[in-house]
Amino acid sequence: MSLDRRISLITLGVEDVARSTAFYERLGWTKSEASQDAITFIQLKGVTLALFARQSLAEDAHVENTAPGFSGVTLAHNVTSERGVDAVYKFALSCGATPVKDPEKVFWGGYSGYFADPDGHLWEVAYNPFVKMDAEGHLILDA
Amino acid sequence: MSLDRRISLITLGVEDVARSTAFYERLGWTKSEASQDAITFIQLKGVTLALFARQSLAEDAHVENTAPGFSGVTLAHNVTSERGVDAVYKFALSCGATPVKDPEKVFWGGYSGYFADPDGHLWEVAYNPFVKMDAEGHLILDA
Repeated sequence: MSLDRRISLITLGVEDVARSTAFYERLGWTKSEASQDAITFIQLKGVTLALFARQSLAEDAHVENTAPGFSGVTLAHNVTSERGVDAVYKFALSCGATPVKDPEKVFWGGYSGYFADPDGHLWEVAYNPFVKMDAEGHLILDA
Repeated sequence: MSLDRRISLITLGVEDVARSTAFYERLGWTKSEASQDAITFIQLKGVTLALFARQSLAEDAHVENTAPGFSGVTLAHNVTSERGVDAVYKFALSCGATPVKDPEKVFWGGYSGYFADPDGHLWEVAYNPFVKMDAEGHLILDA
């Protein structure tokens, strides 16, 4: 057996689903009609983002809802130029994102910055000059 | 402006990149040739999974590497039946995953279980009878 090569859903535990939904809507993403008051689904190309109360998410997984800290998880939104990184980063801040690391050249040869959503979930905005993207904007690592 | 509807990379901070890579390879996923000793890339359909040292990830984002706890993030792998959930869950445990919640019927009408990877990153294996999947296995929320 082997797992099919996909991730169906990324669920972010949040304090206030409505607040988080409004944030991602300001970024330009659309709440799916499948959403309910308790959970928001945002259908992206290739994966769905869900926003769900952090406490409920912990309960669903049967784990303890410890105090938030560094989650150990980052989500990256890659674009095709350094200017594009600057533009997305600036736009995200204008939508209420918290600045975490202003875009800069990084050791691996790319250019990236980080912002946080209302709950501190970390988003990297990155340009990687070594990796191509397909028509949908997904990274092509293995041609 | 609005963000394109995609997430390029999901990066999991891990204690030991080689150990985590071996775990995901046992699940049947393939390490990309773009990987390096310090970072593993696994190209999935629609998103790329990266494995990177937790401390390095925190440094890259300019945040403090607090002690791991509930990350507030879960990744879901949806399949098309309850039996499929059981099979993937059992298979994951045979690959060294830690059982977190054995599959069971859940309040929203589906069926799901959770396992953890070597660093405690939570994976849900789920069957949602209300949502269809496309040919690539991605959820179709808004037709």
